[in-house]
Amino acid sequence: MLRFPSFLRHTLAAGFVLLLTDATAQTTAKTDSLNLRKIYDEALLRGQSYENLRYLTGKIGGRLSGSPQAEQAVQWGKTTMEKLGLDRVYLQEVMVPHWVRGAKEKGEIRADKGKGVDMNVCALGGSVGTNGKLRAQVVEVKTWAELAALPDEKIRGRFVLFNRPMNPAYIESGQAYGEAGDQRRNGAVEAAKRGAVGALVRSLSLAHDEFPHTGAMRYDDKVTKIPAAALSTNGADRLSQLLKADPGLTFELEMACQTLPDVKSYNVVGEIKGTKYPDEIIVVGGHLDSWDLAEGAHDDGTGCVQSMEALRLLKAAGLKPERTVRAVLFMNEENGVRGGNKYAELAKAANEKHLAAMESDGGGFTPRGFNIEAPAATVKKIQQWQPLFRPYGSGEFTAGHAGTDIEPLKEQTKALIGYDCDSQRYFDIHHTGADTFDKVNRRELELGGASMAGLIYLLSKYGL
Amino acid sequence: MLRFPSFLRHTLAAGFVLLLTDATAQTTAKTDSLNLRKIYDEALLRGQSYENLRYLTGKIGGRLSGSPQAEQAVQWGKTTMEKLGLDRVYLQEVMVPHWVRGAKEKGEIRADKGKGVDMNVCALGGSVGTNGKLRAQVVEVKTWAELAALPDEKIRGRFVLFNRPMNPAYIESGQAYGEAGDQRRNGAVEAAKRGAVGALVRSLSLAHDEFPHTGAMRYDDKVTKIPAAALSTNGADRLSQLLKADPGLTFELEMACQTLPDVKSYNVVGEIKGTKYPDEIIVVGGHLDSWDLAEGAHDDGTGCVQSMEALRLLKAAGLKPERTVRAVLFMNEENGVRGGNKYAELAKAANEKHLAAMESDGGGFTPRGFNIEAPAATVKKIQQWQPLFRPYGSGEFTAGHAGTDIEPLKEQTKALIGYDCDSQRYFDIHHTGADTFDKVNRRELELGGASMAGLIYLLSKYGL
Repeated sequence: MLRFPSFLRHTLAAGFVLLLTDATAQTTAKTDSLNLRKIYDEALLRGQSYENLRYLTGKIGGRLSGSPQAEQAVQWGKTTMEKLGLDRVYLQEVMVPHWVRGAKEKGEIRADKGKGVDMNVCALGGSVGTNGKLRAQVVEVKTWAELAALPDEKIRGRFVLFNRPMNPAYIESGQAYGEAGDQRRNGAVEAAKRGAVGALVRSLSLAHDEFPHTGAMRYDDKVTKIPAAALSTNGADRLSQLLKADPGLTFELEMACQTLPDVKSYNVVGEIKGTKYPDEIIVVGGHLDSWDLAEGAHDDGTGCVQSMEALRLLKAAGLKPERTVRAVLFMNEENGVRGGNKYAELAKAANEKHLAAMESDGGGFTPRGFNIEAPAATVKKIQQWQPLFRPYGSGEFTAGHAGTDIEPLKEQTKALIGYDCDSQRYFDIHHTGADTFDKVNRRELELGGASMAGLIYLLSKYGL
Repeated sequence: MLRFPSFLRHTLAAGFVLLLTDATAQTTAKTDSLNLRKIYDEALLRGQSYENLRYLTGKIGGRLSGSPQAEQAVQWGKTTMEKLGLDRVYLQEVMVPHWVRGAKEKGEIRADKGKGVDMNVCALGGSVGTNGKLRAQVVEVKTWAELAALPDEKIRGRFVLFNRPMNPAYIESGQAYGEAGDQRRNGAVEAAKRGAVGALVRSLSLAHDEFPHTGAMRYDDKVTKIPAAALSTNGADRLSQLLKADPGLTFELEMACQTLPDVKSYNVVGEIKGTKYPDEIIVVGGHLDSWDLAEGAHDDGTGCVQSMEALRLLKAAGLKPERTVRAVLFMNEENGVRGGNKYAELAKAANEKHLAAMESDGGGFTPRGFNIEAPAATVKKIQQWQPLFRPYGSGEFTAGHAGTDIEPLKEQTKALIGYDCDSQRYFDIHHTGADTFDKVNRRELELGGASMAGLIYLLSKYGL
């Protein structure tokens, strides 16, 4: 229970300024420190991210590109930003893929004399359907080398079960996700090349549970398109065990998913004009689309509400940015990145000058810091501000991947910056039916928006 | 989201050793770094904390001192430690208070012509009952000064509603808890001194919800004992609002709680004898008792399973501690600290030499570091190990309060150390019906046990 608290972290901000010897620098650092405190106070006392997220997740829900909910989300984003009294709010048209899941998928193991075991499955995003029931034997692999070593007759006409778990020894769960993701993305193509009829992929999760995790997969136009489905981690383990006992068991998969023609959709953009350097732009964004299985709370409703909130916090704290700050709700991160590409394309065509781009797309958990994708000197420059964020537990600025939607801006900007938060719970719910509003903690979410606003404030003041 | 991970944190441990110039020091630091990695690997790959906690919370449940569940928990703790193959497992007898809640409490606001509004209430731990229904008007205060300024006739025969919220601007929620806790602890005594018939206390929480939070309160033998109950934060706000509209409304409270005679109970102790300095003892503990409203998951089932796990991790990683390491499951932290006092008393009587004592009692969330209660030079010495913990996100070693159960050891030890983890969610569920197993994340919990084991390993190797 903890009767007396530790409060040193809270007072470090004051301590920081004493480290500086030059009087002007001291004053500047003190001003920055006080302004950060204003931002955090506003977020913790009157933050709006949480209530915005409640609406997006509860009233609109899952919003895959091309869905009616995605269009509702666009309107919601526009209206919400218009209420903030920004200098400009507008939409950027973009054509997006339109994949639909259709009826709920079914999976069943038929082992030992036909006794059936139901399995939770879900189609991977972009998969073709099964055109009725697809029943076949299963061969399990954990690595590409194992697949390569199998003779064709062990693969032909079968499902390939890709069952390599995420590595639990990593501290950052994103690293484990990055390493295991090739199975989901490439499993269907590689299995089809060898004559398989379907791909079953172990869910990308460090939890042991019954949720299948969807996510994007790809096809190769030169290779037969076979259906690809995710099994839960427990389900994959169960199937693996049953296969050992009965290598001749069959799996029956039924999926009605299909890809429809592309649909017109939008990025939503809102901006505050810079007072001194209006032509230098700082972007902050998340992605508005989400997988269809749940509400897209942590992926990436949180990034959207935090990005809009970052602009609101600057205004509410009375901090007029010297450079232009632009919140962007990107469409179609999950299965195409069309919104991110469109934004970069339009920026280039308009000859816009982007100073930096920030994205929040790793969940709305307690902030730890930022991942910076930039030349070493720029990383170092941004890292000089770390002490200002330490009192808020958000002072870990490391080099690393920043965000998928802002990646296309890489050649047009000095730094890409990813909001970095606690990663332990994220992949438990990522792309599943469990990514719901109740998994988001109000304070964690609002602290994240404040951290983002804080760094944007410094970028807008000092440039890069 | 998040296709490519940041992995710098993970590799910092290797970088750390390069900072040292002396070759021997380099080798030592490298050994320490590798041994820490062994501990974390064991925790993440084969950790047992989570399954132990599942049993304690699910099969035994809430375990207030003196309850049958508390006794079951003692036996469970002993059996669990015996299975670890420690050098010694034993019980320390201690007499503990025995307060029982009795039938479920009821609260009701009767406003405007007797129309009733039900309120979630719970007795504060140690409160007397109401002896049937207690109905009275209510006067609201937010500060002791407001209470002092009220004339007697505004208080006499009434309930005092103590309604000062926890301060949401603090980053560490424990700081807000510490500042608001006086209402819960002293409200009944101070209200009774002025003739009130009961105390209603706003729950100590930063969430806005319907859960009343219990917790210890105290009486003064010279002052009439009046009943004290917690209202949820929403409930306190509602009552406050209704009072503004109708200052004459009444509140009806019914509580059947009572204090029974003290009961015999136990601390559970298990130890690994030090190979070089067996007489120097390092304690690591949590408290076995919990409030009765839920399962005592984060408070403090997590601290108990992590403390036992710390010893298991050392053994499993093949690290034989040079000093004696002792896990203690303290009884009665919540309403008496009798176990903590007894441990210190017996240690003193036996002339035991304690090097350090560590406690985990702030929840089982993602580790951030440690709070150290020791002379400045000792704090500094322990802080030298921070770089070893940074790759694990657990490198914030700050001066601060360590733990209630180990506080009585203060004069007999060189350092008290509190496990420090993410504090944002803790007080939302603290002392409520929501402190259940499902709020605990497996990886967060196991990472915490590893951090504790890591620091114990260093303490046992280098001393203080």
